[in-house]
Amino acid sequence: MTKTTIIVAGGSGLRMGHELPKQFLPIGGIPVLMLTIDAFYRYDAGMHLVVVLPSSQIDFWRELCTTHNFAIKHTVVAGGETRFHSVKNGLTAALPESLVAVHDGVRPFVSQQTIARCFDEALKSGSAIPVTASVESIRQIIGDASVSVNRASYMMVQTPQVFQWQVIDAAYQLPYDTLFTDDASVVEKACFKVTLVDGNRENLKLTTPFDLLVGEALFQQSNARP
Amino acid sequence: MTKTTIIVAGGSGLRMGHELPKQFLPIGGIPVLMLTIDAFYRYDAGMHLVVVLPSSQIDFWRELCTTHNFAIKHTVVAGGETRFHSVKNGLTAALPESLVAVHDGVRPFVSQQTIARCFDEALKSGSAIPVTASVESIRQIIGDASVSVNRASYMMVQTPQVFQWQVIDAAYQLPYDTLFTDDASVVEKACFKVTLVDGNRENLKLTTPFDLLVGEALFQQSNARP
Repeated sequence: MTKTTIIVAGGSGLRMGHELPKQFLPIGGIPVLMLTIDAFYRYDAGMHLVVVLPSSQIDFWRELCTTHNFAIKHTVVAGGETRFHSVKNGLTAALPESLVAVHDGVRPFVSQQTIARCFDEALKSGSAIPVTASVESIRQIIGDASVSVNRASYMMVQTPQVFQWQVIDAAYQLPYDTLFTDDASVVEKACFKVTLVDGNRENLKLTTPFDLLVGEALFQQSNARP
Repeated sequence: MTKTTIIVAGGSGLRMGHELPKQFLPIGGIPVLMLTIDAFYRYDAGMHLVVVLPSSQIDFWRELCTTHNFAIKHTVVAGGETRFHSVKNGLTAALPESLVAVHDGVRPFVSQQTIARCFDEALKSGSAIPVTASVESIRQIIGDASVSVNRASYMMVQTPQVFQWQVIDAAYQLPYDTLFTDDASVVEKACFKVTLVDGNRENLKLTTPFDLLVGEALFQQSNARP
């Protein structure tokens, strides 16, 4: 089955305390978004790659690709007001009848095994999202109070979230809802079932300067491997 | 008010894939547990420090302290079957009428600000635990299925968890319950209220080889600061 991966990079950079949006910040000298695209290209060089960026950043991205001699072919699509709208725009460039992955542009450390598990499971059951257990205790906030919950009953959700095209295409016809925090929540609202697979702990969403420091350490380690 | 910090280090090292228990693994050449003790000593050099270790590891720890010329004074107590029993043993060495912090031995990167927030709030309201927001989407597992939940309603819990002595001493008279994942859950079972304060993201619980790599990066960065 043909594959499409939609890589969504909506960051404006404010949370990182940098002027440069976080998807363009360098790790090992390479912009994060290029590392992310490369992870999917390594998994399947024939896959259709769609990158969704705020329209104001598209020219800058093209220049960056030239400067870095970044040669992996990809389609660029302008994002929307929220992540939901950005994914919806990205879907217009997806190959119909393919398996469609949606991935955060700032998760460059997704493993090849995680990508494979997601595509393999989505091919079988229609959808797959990668999750990891929490090492921290978890509290639920209820009004002004909070309670301990059983952490074994909760999982942390990563990307790529992979769906058969007809599933995700149908789901994104729904009107926008503020409770859509990821693609699985959209697909479930459309009454499709979502299957969980194992993610990998290194598959961090680079959100803060701390994450960038961690990312640099991961990059150095993976490049030090034989 | 006098202060006691009980540092609980129960790791057997298996999860790390090393023979050495994780509390003894080096970061920047220094065993993790020494870095953790040092963080509390820097906050208040006059604080009473209690370290809880599996009885089989106590001799090894004492040798390690000699080898590293580790001079911060602390009381060593043998741990119990579970974290609950280890903390209960640690409490026998706490100063009565003090503020009592319980901290994971494998969280060396707790900030001075987090420690201060916890002690300050516990002095006022009786208890304080540090929490951070989740950057990941969260799913709740219900039987064989799972659902997206609103991640804004959940917080990740760190340590130190700080209590007035009479609160934690009373709570740890309760019989053991498998749902006790942290001290807050014990204290709440005893019908005391728990107050949340801000933790710090670097305050990781070093659980896997990946965490150790992150820890090394954090250590190098903090030592590179002027």
